[in-house]
Amino acid sequence: MAWRTPPRHYGPWEQIASHLAEGLVARGVDVTLFATLDSRTAGKLDGVCPHGYAEDPALDGRVWEALHVAHALARSAEFDLVHSHLDWLPLAFAAHVRAPMVTTVHGFSDPRILPAYRRAASAYVSISDADRSPELDYVATVYHGIDLEALPFSAAGGEDLVTLGRIHPDKGTAAAIEIARMAGRRLAICGIVQDERYFAEQVLPHVDGDAVSYLGPVGPSRRAEVLGSAAALLHPIAFDEPFGLAVVESMACGTPVVTYPRGAMPEIVDEAVTGFLVDGPATAAAAVDRAAGLDRAACRAMASRRFSTARMVTDYLAVYERILG
Amino acid sequence: MAWRTPPRHYGPWEQIASHLAEGLVARGVDVTLFATLDSRTAGKLDGVCPHGYAEDPALDGRVWEALHVAHALARSAEFDLVHSHLDWLPLAFAAHVRAPMVTTVHGFSDPRILPAYRRAASAYVSISDADRSPELDYVATVYHGIDLEALPFSAAGGEDLVTLGRIHPDKGTAAAIEIARMAGRRLAICGIVQDERYFAEQVLPHVDGDAVSYLGPVGPSRRAEVLGSAAALLHPIAFDEPFGLAVVESMACGTPVVTYPRGAMPEIVDEAVTGFLVDGPATAAAAVDRAAGLDRAACRAMASRRFSTARMVTDYLAVYERILG
Repeated sequence: MAWRTPPRHYGPWEQIASHLAEGLVARGVDVTLFATLDSRTAGKLDGVCPHGYAEDPALDGRVWEALHVAHALARSAEFDLVHSHLDWLPLAFAAHVRAPMVTTVHGFSDPRILPAYRRAASAYVSISDADRSPELDYVATVYHGIDLEALPFSAAGGEDLVTLGRIHPDKGTAAAIEIARMAGRRLAICGIVQDERYFAEQVLPHVDGDAVSYLGPVGPSRRAEVLGSAAALLHPIAFDEPFGLAVVESMACGTPVVTYPRGAMPEIVDEAVTGFLVDGPATAAAAVDRAAGLDRAACRAMASRRFSTARMVTDYLAVYERILG
Repeated sequence: MAWRTPPRHYGPWEQIASHLAEGLVARGVDVTLFATLDSRTAGKLDGVCPHGYAEDPALDGRVWEALHVAHALARSAEFDLVHSHLDWLPLAFAAHVRAPMVTTVHGFSDPRILPAYRRAASAYVSISDADRSPELDYVATVYHGIDLEALPFSAAGGEDLVTLGRIHPDKGTAAAIEIARMAGRRLAICGIVQDERYFAEQVLPHVDGDAVSYLGPVGPSRRAEVLGSAAALLHPIAFDEPFGLAVVESMACGTPVVTYPRGAMPEIVDEAVTGFLVDGPATAAAAVDRAAGLDRAACRAMASRRFSTARMVTDYLAVYERILG
């Protein structure tokens, strides 16, 4: 709802909802995608919000999310199953959903949203084992899937480093700059600016267009080129990342990852195959050459095996069957 | 939902909902009050939220409002009519309310909430003619009613001035300080601090406990004493006040008002009977002596006639009859 489905530049929840919807349609499932009305799907599109509220300051996100959820509720009896990717608001109204409901928990923004989850008649899917709340029961963990065709293998890679994610202290953009400097390699920074002060104070002063470049959000169309031409992705997170879509996208292009063992990273990264888990900037810098020396084809192969949209669609179909059977 | 019903200190929406609910119960209406679970009513109380989210930082107001609205929706078919005082969220879900619905619009926090109002199957009541949106149809304007017994007439009044409202630029607390200084009278400031920076920079430096005092929120139990012992209430608002409960409470105690002709003020204040409408701090200061010279009994009488809870209850019963008949 914040962004169009699929998103133009940024919007991981919308990206996954899109991959899943299109994948289900391709398998012959009758899918109605409730999303912003400028969204694109091979299924049926419905909704009330003209476009993403994060893309139009005239829209109050709270109001449009509520109108959207109310509209989907009103149609819920028409479906065999409702699959929500929309956080806690549909859960607060779960008693009014007239079909079995499953919710993919894309992350907990705040522990104070948990009361909506605890009371709701919804099955839950976690996006990593690490992101599970001990207060909830889950039917499955389903790792995100990506569009492997849109992220082709790049055998050559390159010498430079890349980091991709919201520019925010959580994502460790400043740490990536430090690591690249210590590793003696150039760094390309990609992502939307979520924390403007952090960007202005800790990132921009280092951007010189040579050692450190800022490439902007780098939407789906440019992502393969940027990720595929790097030696390694730096992902020195300062929070418990629930999944880490950029990490998997990088692997798919053949570019291994150097990250910290927080959140989902130990589940996502296969040590010495798709990257390295290290414990700080110095060890990260030391791991860069090792990461750059990994077999890029093996990295791609592992990403293809574990994080394809096809695998995600199969996993969700199994979840649906379990709920409906 | 932000506060208990009735509120302990501040909470005008909850105060009106409480006066109305208790007044309806007194007339024999079967009332279920959906409010925080620590609320008090002679009717039936229901809800899900243990206490007001503004009174407990562990509660996320968005989440608990949604849970509250979902709960009330689930019971809506049991009632002849649902009367909402809860802003736009119930309106977004109005299609799921299984009874005729009327909404008292206590104020528009932002024009971006209007889409929820425009689409909803609810009748609307405005709290002043001034607060009507040209985009909506209204069944009536019902002015707020107050508890006249809790705000007894004070024949004597006093020499000092008082201002009561959220400490916020909208309410003109700093202008009240300036007016009192020009009028050569002491000022008592009452109200919750809503804008802490404004309070620190524009109010606190003037508080000396003599010329200017800050008395804190001044809840219902102390309000009559503070308002009744003043010569006049200063209400130099910098926004279009939708109603102005403190203005009416002051009149009820016999204390006239000096205010600006913005929002509902020209409707609420009877010029030269319950106060004066002036066009700035200098004319306000000049009007203070005239206001202090008004007939306090006539001020009380006008407030009793126009702004009693009994009158408000009668008005709302007429609204309900119109909707149901």
